[in-house]
Amino acid sequence: MQLAPGGHHLARHARLRSALRASALDALIVTSLPNIAYLTGLFASMAALLVSQDELRLLVDVRYLLPATDRQADLDGLTLTLIPSGGSFEDSLAEVAQGYSGGRVGIEAEHITVRQHNYLTNRMAGMGGPRVLETTDGLVENLRSVKDPWEIARLREAAARLSDAAKCIIPKALAGISERDMAGLIEGELRRVGFDKPAFDTIVASGPNSAIPHYRSGDRRLATGDLVVLDFGGILDGYAVDLSRTITIGPASERARRVLDDVVAAQLAAFSAVRVGRPATEIDEAARQVLERAGLGEAFSHGTGHGLGLEVHERPRVTRSRPNLPVEPLEAGMVFTLEPGAYFPGWGGVRIEDDVVVTMAGPEWLTDVPRRM
Amino acid sequence: MQLAPGGHHLARHARLRSALRASALDALIVTSLPNIAYLTGLFASMAALLVSQDELRLLVDVRYLLPATDRQADLDGLTLTLIPSGGSFEDSLAEVAQGYSGGRVGIEAEHITVRQHNYLTNRMAGMGGPRVLETTDGLVENLRSVKDPWEIARLREAAARLSDAAKCIIPKALAGISERDMAGLIEGELRRVGFDKPAFDTIVASGPNSAIPHYRSGDRRLATGDLVVLDFGGILDGYAVDLSRTITIGPASERARRVLDDVVAAQLAAFSAVRVGRPATEIDEAARQVLERAGLGEAFSHGTGHGLGLEVHERPRVTRSRPNLPVEPLEAGMVFTLEPGAYFPGWGGVRIEDDVVVTMAGPEWLTDVPRRM
Repeated sequence: MQLAPGGHHLARHARLRSALRASALDALIVTSLPNIAYLTGLFASMAALLVSQDELRLLVDVRYLLPATDRQADLDGLTLTLIPSGGSFEDSLAEVAQGYSGGRVGIEAEHITVRQHNYLTNRMAGMGGPRVLETTDGLVENLRSVKDPWEIARLREAAARLSDAAKCIIPKALAGISERDMAGLIEGELRRVGFDKPAFDTIVASGPNSAIPHYRSGDRRLATGDLVVLDFGGILDGYAVDLSRTITIGPASERARRVLDDVVAAQLAAFSAVRVGRPATEIDEAARQVLERAGLGEAFSHGTGHGLGLEVHERPRVTRSRPNLPVEPLEAGMVFTLEPGAYFPGWGGVRIEDDVVVTMAGPEWLTDVPRRM
Repeated sequence: MQLAPGGHHLARHARLRSALRASALDALIVTSLPNIAYLTGLFASMAALLVSQDELRLLVDVRYLLPATDRQADLDGLTLTLIPSGGSFEDSLAEVAQGYSGGRVGIEAEHITVRQHNYLTNRMAGMGGPRVLETTDGLVENLRSVKDPWEIARLREAAARLSDAAKCIIPKALAGISERDMAGLIEGELRRVGFDKPAFDTIVASGPNSAIPHYRSGDRRLATGDLVVLDFGGILDGYAVDLSRTITIGPASERARRVLDDVVAAQLAAFSAVRVGRPATEIDEAARQVLERAGLGEAFSHGTGHGLGLEVHERPRVTRSRPNLPVEPLEAGMVFTLEPGAYFPGWGGVRIEDDVVVTMAGPEWLTDVPRRM
């Protein structure tokens, strides 16, 4: 597995430390595993990280001692706390939090359960100090939404491989194959082109099933006249890419052709609306307007896209504006999907999804967009 | 996908309602998705459920309207609340909680983040009442730890298929194949025998990698003299089963043979310690004693097993006793893995894992245990 060179991690720490200062926090306890991977290069199933202006303390159990020690070679200033054998993660986390000598400590409200928070608070009170943990929201996720050049290079490589996989495997979607077997072929192809694993359960939704945006795959066999939505992605070096194509089995009906054309037009409108400094919601508006003008507004029942990175859904949100959601202005280095769709219960649906990166000069496709080549 | 007949769900509601009375709660808001699947048969990626003595209210968005409506045919008394298009899950959940007319409402502390809890509390305060949400811990999970006959039948079927897959595919682990390709073969075989998907990332850990219990798979090719740990599982009708085998490529060395024998003996000792009414921790003690007597106590760095069901790790915990953990007496209908191991950094490791169900007459293997046939 390729990891970002240590210098990239140190730059991420500097950005986080400046975000901490802006939030008047002395330290942050990071419990989100993707956030820990982002800040340390350690991909663990259980860990915590304390980041202050002069400290970077990683809490792991014996399973991750070796890989965590490896990371110390690369990351100046990384110290380790080992969860004692037979001890609990939460007890050790309470000790790390209580042992920190500084003042205001933040904790990621999105990545700690009420149960864990209650337990931590009780344990820390029992240790003599009731240290108050301030809840924070999205401090590291905000940094992650703007990719550094190493991340963009990995995402570009991953998207190229995903496009290759799509070209090889989609022609195998023929009448008679079951959705589930087709999903199996796709996941085999993802491995063949070098992905560590699928980014999510592969979707092969045929005929009436294509009208269900969250459908995965089942026993139905592809049949002539079907619309088939294929939606799949892979993880490469920890980074997720995601692509959807909609095909017809046999010639497309008049209606299917029209919906396909309208969804393609919506995706192009979304692409054209990508501009540094403008809110991400304008991308969704652009796609939605095209579909509304085509009479498909009601049929487009989800948002236009989502950020990609260490998670397959992350910031920025490329959706409708909502009163409770903050405005997210686009920045160079953001990577996200553009995936408008239109769904008609009982008849079928269409979704077309590609990945883009924002640059100062405008958006760039990361996946191949075959119909425009 | 096969679902438990509705009567099973009604019996589960009766058990939960009696647990609510015992906790002096009038209602529980369920936010754990496996808990919602258990209580309703709806497998959703976003939903909430309010259960009181006379109400069963499911909150879903438009994606799950159709499947949720289907569930109403089977589940007497199930009512639906639809998240309005463009509305948020949490706003709707606040309305459901605030709209409930009864008294004390519990919320699953393990399945709600501090951020969600803060948001809910603020929204509800804004709606005029500050209804207090009491945190609960494991109410539904405790019910789930004892499987009903339908669940045991599904787990038995899943374990039989997993054993079949193991028999067909493990002989393909030969010198020269890469760990990752072997993992691909295993996952293909899981699909072939009818699993919906792997229960977790398949582990193929060869040579020195076999000494790392949490290793997944990589580019290393299997070589003569290797110990290879293969650990895989599948999901059938929502239920997870899990199996590990350790093989040698070519004849086993004297040392490898001894460790393999000791781990088999530890697994048998664990099996013999399964007895209704005794704490689950005694199973772990029995396995650990065998390995300690063989001088492998330090090398056994994890617990003996974990419950299986709608999640691949659930209750009961089949681990060492710890001061903070409650005693879990074994009950007929519990299903869990028995998977002792021994790991020697730089040399290699061994893990052998099978699944058992507890009956009044003692334990029964669910997976085939080839060496004892």
